[in-house]
Amino acid sequence: MTELTQDYFEQLDRQDPLAPLREQFVLPEGTLYFNGNSLGAMPRAMTRRLMDFTEQEWGHEIVRGWVTQGWYGLPQRIGAKIAGLIGAAEDEVIVSDTTSVNIYKLALAALQLKPGRTGIVTTQDIFPTDIYILEGVQSTLPGKVELSLTDADAVLQAVDQQTALVVLSPVNYKSGALYDMAQMTTQIQAQGALVLWDLSHSCGAHLVDLNGIGADFAVGCGYKFLNGGPGAPAYLYVAKRWQQQIQQPLTGWKGHANPFAMSPHYIPAEGITRMLCGTHPVVAMTCLEVAVDLFAGADMAQVQAKSRRMGELFITLAEQCCAAYGLELLSPKDSTQRGSQVSFSHHSGYALVQALIGRQVICDFRAPDVVRFGITPLYQKYQDIWQTVTILHEILATEQWRNYPAAPTATVT
Amino acid sequence: MTELTQDYFEQLDRQDPLAPLREQFVLPEGTLYFNGNSLGAMPRAMTRRLMDFTEQEWGHEIVRGWVTQGWYGLPQRIGAKIAGLIGAAEDEVIVSDTTSVNIYKLALAALQLKPGRTGIVTTQDIFPTDIYILEGVQSTLPGKVELSLTDADAVLQAVDQQTALVVLSPVNYKSGALYDMAQMTTQIQAQGALVLWDLSHSCGAHLVDLNGIGADFAVGCGYKFLNGGPGAPAYLYVAKRWQQQIQQPLTGWKGHANPFAMSPHYIPAEGITRMLCGTHPVVAMTCLEVAVDLFAGADMAQVQAKSRRMGELFITLAEQCCAAYGLELLSPKDSTQRGSQVSFSHHSGYALVQALIGRQVICDFRAPDVVRFGITPLYQKYQDIWQTVTILHEILATEQWRNYPAAPTATVT
Repeated sequence: MTELTQDYFEQLDRQDPLAPLREQFVLPEGTLYFNGNSLGAMPRAMTRRLMDFTEQEWGHEIVRGWVTQGWYGLPQRIGAKIAGLIGAAEDEVIVSDTTSVNIYKLALAALQLKPGRTGIVTTQDIFPTDIYILEGVQSTLPGKVELSLTDADAVLQAVDQQTALVVLSPVNYKSGALYDMAQMTTQIQAQGALVLWDLSHSCGAHLVDLNGIGADFAVGCGYKFLNGGPGAPAYLYVAKRWQQQIQQPLTGWKGHANPFAMSPHYIPAEGITRMLCGTHPVVAMTCLEVAVDLFAGADMAQVQAKSRRMGELFITLAEQCCAAYGLELLSPKDSTQRGSQVSFSHHSGYALVQALIGRQVICDFRAPDVVRFGITPLYQKYQDIWQTVTILHEILATEQWRNYPAAPTATVT
Repeated sequence: MTELTQDYFEQLDRQDPLAPLREQFVLPEGTLYFNGNSLGAMPRAMTRRLMDFTEQEWGHEIVRGWVTQGWYGLPQRIGAKIAGLIGAAEDEVIVSDTTSVNIYKLALAALQLKPGRTGIVTTQDIFPTDIYILEGVQSTLPGKVELSLTDADAVLQAVDQQTALVVLSPVNYKSGALYDMAQMTTQIQAQGALVLWDLSHSCGAHLVDLNGIGADFAVGCGYKFLNGGPGAPAYLYVAKRWQQQIQQPLTGWKGHANPFAMSPHYIPAEGITRMLCGTHPVVAMTCLEVAVDLFAGADMAQVQAKSRRMGELFITLAEQCCAAYGLELLSPKDSTQRGSQVSFSHHSGYALVQALIGRQVICDFRAPDVVRFGITPLYQKYQDIWQTVTILHEILATEQWRNYPAAPTATVT
């Protein structure tokens, strides 16, 4: 194995085909940012684009902007761009609402597409809002929905002829462990159930091929690896084969076949547009589009390859110099089994994260003892890994974490 | 009556206590903007605030901005400010999602608060998305919801002991006719039903006193009279007395009692916060806050008084010089019966609106023959009325509208 020296990391940066993209992002001087799986860094073009939005679009055109500035088409236009990152056709993805709202839409749609089936299955370790929304679906339809929360490795045992929908994240948000999306999809569909993939921790970070695996539904947020800004609008995917039949409950006017006819009854639009609900936040969509457009300069295979390589290097370095201090790898060591993050457990994980943040390494803590480093190949350098593990080692070797509180306060995913 | 001369309008502007606010908005040179009831003009401070947001907040703090920049508290903080415009307590209003999504939440909540009742009543002439969403509620709970669409003056006859909820807009979006909110609320509640007021065409334009009338629920959008930008986030109101019992179906993590505990079951937050769902779009909320803050410089009683006076002057002038050309007043003539708009019917209404737009008078058309002028006292001058009716008269007298197509295309409310 190549010896892991600082020179080696610098050499990797010089050879990195994605290196020019880093210049397209704003990163505060001195900060080592490993939290892009929670909130992506800001694209450099954002300020200029927002100035154009206020001065040329809203300020100048006011209401005419809906037509002259293309605001109407933003959900479809950005959806088509995101589609290219997840193996979907352009007309299978649309930007709308939040991930939570979109899960609700698709869960109720699944129950309608699978009449007679009452089961919804998800995992205990999925991001909690997914579970909360499914509980909301259950409370919407009292006595009509059986919700099963399973262990990550027991999903298939919980799926049967009563199951309408299985909701899964390809990536465990704590450990970074990956599902085999193709295999899970095939096996769940073999029971006649639908699968909804929550791509919030996947899209923009690793290869996803929704059409290749025959996926049914997917959702995802715009603010993690897509870098669309805090609380950026979410998106959803409905496979073409379901688009004629699907009905969703949030039948707002933007999903109407002819919103401006102002007709007194709802008629769903053709295709993915029927998944829309109310009027979309144009400024937030504008930010998301700036961010998604940066992926035009990135091949997703290169992004995934860099993510894996960075993860491997992080793990190897950390094991070499930090294992003696109680830091244990929680993520799968095999890169093909791991999403774009590296997680460790440490008995004083919370304090350790605070100590890292104190040294300008922005990472995050997840209960009970998880130290999580997001890997974002679009704007991280290989050298960031070297510097971060060097700081991590110093903190552990000198027990600097003892200067920080042991108990968690609010964090964000 | 005072003679209506241009001098008189100029004098009104000199005496207008709200006149300084106009300078706080960007209005394109030469444009007479009468569409603020569809999309409000942009506050001048917007560009600067967005530059601060990108450079000082997101770009500099990245994920830490949720805490250091107060992003978490935006839904409650802006909600408290809007509360002051609609006669609500600060903890009775929260900013969240879209008007459509919020109507869905509250309609399902109403059915849960009124077990055994299955009726929902609204009017045929309410803004269509309200009807569409109620149809979505009906399709969510097949066979369990009776939806009645009534004429505007037949609402009370449709309400009975089976009615759970009545959804009303104080303002008819075409004619501008106002309901007596207090009387309607009292009479509907006398039947044991709840009332949901859609304030999209009211908040920021005329006096609303939700607590004074004993209202139950309200919703509204941020982009019309509130000037929060295209598709700005919406808000909702739940009277304090319902906040302990209310359950809503979109139980996303931001409505959880402790979102960051990442607990495996949903527990609703105390108070209005339980009405939240997913992660809110920070940039869109930031824009809305800039706009709502401008109301701190406006007394709502002054806003209403100016709105009524402008409407009266518009009607009087138009009747004096345009009635001979087939322009008929559709709005109530009595200002106390009229929202912040003036609507006329004209046999060639669509072409007339296009001709007005061609002369830089931005107003809008509503089928079948309605020419609608929104009145926005924060940034309109009295002189705008004089100039607009002068142009309107010219177009009618010379039949300039004959140069424009007779058939409608897309417009926005």
